[in-house]
Amino acid sequence: MKENETLEDLQYKGYKILQKKGAFKFGVDAVLAAYYAESDIKPGHKILDMGTGTGIIAILIAARTKASHITGMEIQSEIADMALRSVKLNNLESRVSIVIDDIAHPKNISPGYYDHVVTNPPYKKKGSGIVNPGDSKAISRHEILCTLEDVISLAAKSLKPNGFFTMVNRPERLCDSMELMRKYKIEPKTVRFVHPVPSRSPSIMLIKGVKFGNPYLKVEPPLYIFDEENNYTREINDIYNRE
Amino acid sequence: MKENETLEDLQYKGYKILQKKGAFKFGVDAVLAAYYAESDIKPGHKILDMGTGTGIIAILIAARTKASHITGMEIQSEIADMALRSVKLNNLESRVSIVIDDIAHPKNISPGYYDHVVTNPPYKKKGSGIVNPGDSKAISRHEILCTLEDVISLAAKSLKPNGFFTMVNRPERLCDSMELMRKYKIEPKTVRFVHPVPSRSPSIMLIKGVKFGNPYLKVEPPLYIFDEENNYTREINDIYNRE
Repeated sequence: MKENETLEDLQYKGYKILQKKGAFKFGVDAVLAAYYAESDIKPGHKILDMGTGTGIIAILIAARTKASHITGMEIQSEIADMALRSVKLNNLESRVSIVIDDIAHPKNISPGYYDHVVTNPPYKKKGSGIVNPGDSKAISRHEILCTLEDVISLAAKSLKPNGFFTMVNRPERLCDSMELMRKYKIEPKTVRFVHPVPSRSPSIMLIKGVKFGNPYLKVEPPLYIFDEENNYTREINDIYNRE
Repeated sequence: MKENETLEDLQYKGYKILQKKGAFKFGVDAVLAAYYAESDIKPGHKILDMGTGTGIIAILIAARTKASHITGMEIQSEIADMALRSVKLNNLESRVSIVIDDIAHPKNISPGYYDHVVTNPPYKKKGSGIVNPGDSKAISRHEILCTLEDVISLAAKSLKPNGFFTMVNRPERLCDSMELMRKYKIEPKTVRFVHPVPSRSPSIMLIKGVKFGNPYLKVEPPLYIFDEENNYTREINDIYNRE
C-alpha cells in the first residue's frame, strides 16, 4: 500500500479495496451498477467493466457472481496499477484482469467477445463546468478523455449479439443515453431511478439494454436510499449486506 | 344530449363534459396532461390539443389558465361533435374551437402558430394486440390512424420556436418519445413518472419539451396516486380540487 492510498473494507466476505486519497472514490453508484448488472450475469459469462477506476465493479461482480472472467479497463495507469493490487489482495487474479486502455481509442478489446458490459462512466457532459483536465478525479467524472458516445459505441462493439449493457449515470443523461444506445443497436430494456428519498427527484439512473434486442422498455419501481425518517431502506441494506 | 351519451361533472367550477357510452372516456391521463402543461401556459398563449377526444384537455386548460385560445383537433367527427357540444355547454366557444382534422395528414393546422401543444395520443404501438380498427375506443388507444411519429412531427411543425410540447403517454414509450422528440427538434426538458403507489413501477409518463431547446433533462420527483394506505395522496387531491 502506497502512502497516498487507503484500504477500505467492502463489508462483504472480507473483500477489500485500495483507494487513492483525493481521487475519485467508489461510491453508491458503483455498488448499484454491480447490483443492477448481477441479475443478468450467468455462470461462465465474460464481463467487461469499462473505466473500472479502483476496480470496485469488477471485484464486486467477481465476488458475487459466477462470471468466468471480468476485464476491468482503465486509462489512468496509476489507478489501473492500484486496481490490480486490489485484485491481488482479494486473490481474484484468476478471474479479474486489469487492462490499461482508452475507451475513445481502444487497442485491446476483442469485438463481439463479451456477454455483459458494465460501466460507471464520466457523467458530466463535455464543456460543462470548469475542470482541470490533468486531475484524476476530473477524468473519472467529466467527459475529458471519452464521451458517452465513445462509451456506448465501444460497448456495442464489444458485446455478443443479445449481450447485456448496464450503465449507471445521472438522470439528466437519460435522453442522451437512450438516443445513443439505439444508435449503436443496444435496445434499452429497463431503467431504474434511484431517489435519495421518495419525495425527491432521482439522483442516479440505472439503465440496461440488450444488443439487437426488441424494443420494449420497462421503467422499474423506484429505488429509495433513505425513507422519510432518514433511515436506509430495506432494499439498500439488502444490497449492501447480502451474502 | 344524445341517448348514447353521459354528462359528467368535472367537479371544478361547475364545468361539465359529455362522454359517449362505450367509447374512450377521459381519465386521470387527460387531467394530468392538462395539469402538467399548465405551468407553461401564459396569458395570451395559443394552445393546440392534438386528438382532443371528448375535449377534456382543451376544456380544462380553458377553465384553468388565461390562454387566449385552445384548438382541439379530433379525427372522429362524431366525437368532435360531442366535444363541441361540451364546449358550448361550458360557454367556452369564444376560447375553444374544435377542428376535425387528421394528425397523419393535417389540413387545417397553421405551422409555427402555437405556443404550446398538448396531447394524450394513442399509446399502444402499431401492431401490438388485436384491435378492431373501426372501434372508436381502439382509435383513441392504438396507433391505428396515427403513429407517435405523426404526433411529434406535427407538434414540432405547429409550434413557435421555444414553444412547449406536453405529452402524457405510457412509460414503455419513453425511449420512442425521446428519440422522436430529438429527431423533430423538440428537446426533452422534464419528465415525471406517475406511480399507482410509491413501491410500484410508474403507469403514466408526463413529458415536456421545448422546440429548439438546449439539452438538459430533469427527471422530476415521482407523482404517487395512492399512498401505501390506499388513500389518494395530497398532490392528487390538490390536482383534482384546486381552484
